[in-house]
Amino acid sequence: MSSSLRVLIIGGVACGPKSASRLRRLMPDADITMVERDQLVSYGACGLPYYVEGEFSNINALTHTQVGLPRTPEFFEKTKGFTTLTRTEALHIDRKNKKVRVKNLDTGQEEDLPYDKLVLATGGSAFRPPIPGIDLKNVWFMTHPEHARTLVDEIQAQGFQKAVMVGAGFIGMEVTEALTNKGLDLTLVEMFDQVMPGVLDKDIAAYVQLHLDDNEVELALGERVTALNPDASGKKVAAVQTDRQTIDADCVIIAVGTRPNDSLAREAGLACAEKGGILINDYCQTSDPDIYSGGDCVVNRYISSIAGNPMYVPLGSTANKHGRVIADHIAGMRTPFEGISGTGIVKCFDFNIGRTGLTEKMAKQLNIDYEVITWGGPDKPHYMKNARYLLIKMLASKRDRKVLGAQVAGMGEAAKRVDTVAATIFFGGTLDQLAGIDLAYAPPYGPPIDPIAVCAQILSNKMDGIAKSVSVEQAKHIMDTTDAVMLDVREPDENKMLTIECEADRHFHIPLGQLRERMNELPKDKDILSYCKISLRGYEAQLILNAGGFDRVCFIEGGHEAWPYGLNYLGM
Amino acid sequence: MSSSLRVLIIGGVACGPKSASRLRRLMPDADITMVERDQLVSYGACGLPYYVEGEFSNINALTHTQVGLPRTPEFFEKTKGFTTLTRTEALHIDRKNKKVRVKNLDTGQEEDLPYDKLVLATGGSAFRPPIPGIDLKNVWFMTHPEHARTLVDEIQAQGFQKAVMVGAGFIGMEVTEALTNKGLDLTLVEMFDQVMPGVLDKDIAAYVQLHLDDNEVELALGERVTALNPDASGKKVAAVQTDRQTIDADCVIIAVGTRPNDSLAREAGLACAEKGGILINDYCQTSDPDIYSGGDCVVNRYISSIAGNPMYVPLGSTANKHGRVIADHIAGMRTPFEGISGTGIVKCFDFNIGRTGLTEKMAKQLNIDYEVITWGGPDKPHYMKNARYLLIKMLASKRDRKVLGAQVAGMGEAAKRVDTVAATIFFGGTLDQLAGIDLAYAPPYGPPIDPIAVCAQILSNKMDGIAKSVSVEQAKHIMDTTDAVMLDVREPDENKMLTIECEADRHFHIPLGQLRERMNELPKDKDILSYCKISLRGYEAQLILNAGGFDRVCFIEGGHEAWPYGLNYLGM
Repeated sequence: MSSSLRVLIIGGVACGPKSASRLRRLMPDADITMVERDQLVSYGACGLPYYVEGEFSNINALTHTQVGLPRTPEFFEKTKGFTTLTRTEALHIDRKNKKVRVKNLDTGQEEDLPYDKLVLATGGSAFRPPIPGIDLKNVWFMTHPEHARTLVDEIQAQGFQKAVMVGAGFIGMEVTEALTNKGLDLTLVEMFDQVMPGVLDKDIAAYVQLHLDDNEVELALGERVTALNPDASGKKVAAVQTDRQTIDADCVIIAVGTRPNDSLAREAGLACAEKGGILINDYCQTSDPDIYSGGDCVVNRYISSIAGNPMYVPLGSTANKHGRVIADHIAGMRTPFEGISGTGIVKCFDFNIGRTGLTEKMAKQLNIDYEVITWGGPDKPHYMKNARYLLIKMLASKRDRKVLGAQVAGMGEAAKRVDTVAATIFFGGTLDQLAGIDLAYAPPYGPPIDPIAVCAQILSNKMDGIAKSVSVEQAKHIMDTTDAVMLDVREPDENKMLTIECEADRHFHIPLGQLRERMNELPKDKDILSYCKISLRGYEAQLILNAGGFDRVCFIEGGHEAWPYGLNYLGM
Repeated sequence: MSSSLRVLIIGGVACGPKSASRLRRLMPDADITMVERDQLVSYGACGLPYYVEGEFSNINALTHTQVGLPRTPEFFEKTKGFTTLTRTEALHIDRKNKKVRVKNLDTGQEEDLPYDKLVLATGGSAFRPPIPGIDLKNVWFMTHPEHARTLVDEIQAQGFQKAVMVGAGFIGMEVTEALTNKGLDLTLVEMFDQVMPGVLDKDIAAYVQLHLDDNEVELALGERVTALNPDASGKKVAAVQTDRQTIDADCVIIAVGTRPNDSLAREAGLACAEKGGILINDYCQTSDPDIYSGGDCVVNRYISSIAGNPMYVPLGSTANKHGRVIADHIAGMRTPFEGISGTGIVKCFDFNIGRTGLTEKMAKQLNIDYEVITWGGPDKPHYMKNARYLLIKMLASKRDRKVLGAQVAGMGEAAKRVDTVAATIFFGGTLDQLAGIDLAYAPPYGPPIDPIAVCAQILSNKMDGIAKSVSVEQAKHIMDTTDAVMLDVREPDENKMLTIECEADRHFHIPLGQLRERMNELPKDKDILSYCKISLRGYEAQLILNAGGFDRVCFIEGGHEAWPYGLNYLGM
């Protein structure tokens, strides 16, 4: 027998192959074996919605390398130098004797594989809601290339016209775009009363919902699916039954969350989070230091101590980071995994929707003393044809001005703004530091002061008591429950085109340039909510009125561009 | 007379209006006056090349707000609340009596304007090379809307066909794209032997030059312009004379650098850098604490102490940051300007070209013990249609692994990678931290491990002695001066399509998957330079050969995609 280090890896999708490949580079002599229950290894599950949409036509793209080599056990053996056993399920970990009982799913044969170091990369599984009809035909989950392939085949073969997407998380949003763009009529059902409930605050979700509406997606929010109803044959799904309605469906796709595959770890007595997910330290070690874990089967600590308990955020990017950290630690290098900040992004039609750090909802739950602002504006100088609107919501700690989180949505370039904030949060930066970063500026990429810097500056102004503002949600509430008035400070032609919906006698219109002379037309004894298109002028109006002796003035964050409730077009 | 604080601002393009507007928000009672020599104030000079290209057709877009209001003195008075005097030149600063002599350029009348706080935002001027013919007709600089407007008009009126762009900096690259896309035959003349000499290292510039070549731009690098030759009339330019050739030209555009307008400051005895540029502290105060300065007339400190002397990097983004810092400090708020990191970006045809932090050239000059790598690869998963190649060069300090700089070029999305590195440098982050940031991942935006993280990881591997690699420049030198051999580890069909140019008996081809079995075909007594398309497999090959007992193996950074010297197509 070889005396080299025996490393056994359970799971072959992302963290598994990554740790195996990296370890081989670091330890040419290690004896590395990866076992995987499935026939496929190392596939790009994140690409499934894009196969469905038709972005690429050969599903093999997800299981092959860039140059078209299939990532088979032979591939890994020859190019990466480690052994891969597919169709092999791990049944039991014997920690005392350091071996794992595995079963060949084709032959049924079982054997014990010994290890010096064990890596659990068992991944996550789509949650299957326990409802009647869940096993009917034409019901899909979206976690395996086979799911995407058969969905595309059946859309064509059976001529589906009506689809119901259950779950409005990342996968739900991507599949919504995919199927709608393929010409299906789609209803998006979500148990919570907003899309992307775990990702976005309700106000930003409301803005995203406008875009889904523009793309003729039927939204069924705040509805719980109670059953999938069969057709006359009793075999195929015919409708989705919710607690409010029955929605006809030729096909149903379900993506209502992922659950960590932690049963093997639990059974072996490894520490797991109460709600699921293997607990790991900064080097991805479990409570047994010879057993590592990473990828969709673990919970991750937040980048700073602010967020308390570890979070379950299954993502391919994190899984790959874990793989590297695990290999490094086995090889004696101490590269810590510094945690996640809950970063995520999704493209849905023409919208880019991203988030990093804490949402306002989370900050409230954690009892953090925060300030928040929503800002909107073009992502490039207005003279560039491809300038697009972006809405940004940002939170910072009142105690130390550190940036806590941001949500970005709109047709503008969101990813780089999310990444900049993610980096700032990673390094514990403040609002003023975020605004001070020397970002890459040229007209094709952004305005001289980047939207993310503007947002940080205005939030800083708000914290300093210079900017006084309310979110669209707060503004709506104030208008509905008090005698406050609105002040539109845009130019006459803009005002004629569209205004925020509001009783005529509570809606004033004074262009910003006339405000200094005409402010006496406004009531001093009522709350005044000023706005323009994006509320840059709304902010100026607040300052002008403050300087003119008005105390009760706030601008509406994001202006009418961010207003999701109701607009009057053409002054009607 | 009012007892309010009198703030006088000289210069009305970027830093001036920004500081005035911000100050008005902070100090409603301050007496704020801005003087500007020109008729125009607050214009977007960065947009000039885009007007030339036809991105927008009304030059007023550069001088008007988003909603079409001209940024006139009246506009600033009414909406921003400060006084603007245009066509008013500042002649002399009387620091003792705190007043500035100004002259109305229309009436010739002079007067003294008193100040409590003075802001010098006098900007920069295009350098005019002292060569014969510089005043001929059809010679343009590109710093004022009038330049762009007349160039566009004259291209049409005179039917220019041949253009010469002198200077391959940011503006030069943008104008090169603009005029080429307008159908002119363009020669780009640059004194240094590479494009973007102050911005990019020569190897990355070489890669950019391939793209200029693809777009039929004639390059005249390493050529000094000695004269502009007139036509028969003696009035119009007909050719550009360099120290090597005569280039016919219907029009010539010159952008060979900006010089800070610091003469007013120098004359007033304020401290300036030897090579030009007003010296300021972190609050943008000059050596006279009542005189502030910002924008293109100052030199900036680098974000960390590593870079030594302040740098002259005139940019609209920085000018706006200065404006805010100045206003804050005058109003009693201490928000420091934390310095620049030399970040810049330019779009040229389909290439995005950016840089932040130190180049390798700078690191050498500063005598920093650095490690460097160049990495290339797709910016998104390979199954996404819009995946594009990006070349990234990254430097880090060997002493503390802190990221020193990055250059990014290619058709892929470069801006967000530059911004992520800029943020990392701002916060003093290491390579491992950069790779650990929780960046926004989804297939439309990038691969699970972002290129910038991959690059950081491989540089980290190189520093740790795991990855052994040479740049394309070094590889070329090794092949030219030693008996080293090349090893292509791509698949047979890839090898048939194209290889790096090399004598047949010094070029081996063994696909990576066969390398473990066939390595005995390779010489152990020669340097082996392994490569593939992007050198991911080249890197694997180095590790496999090392494990197999080969010591003298390096991979070629960036693979054949980064090879700017010569390629054999179709195995010919």
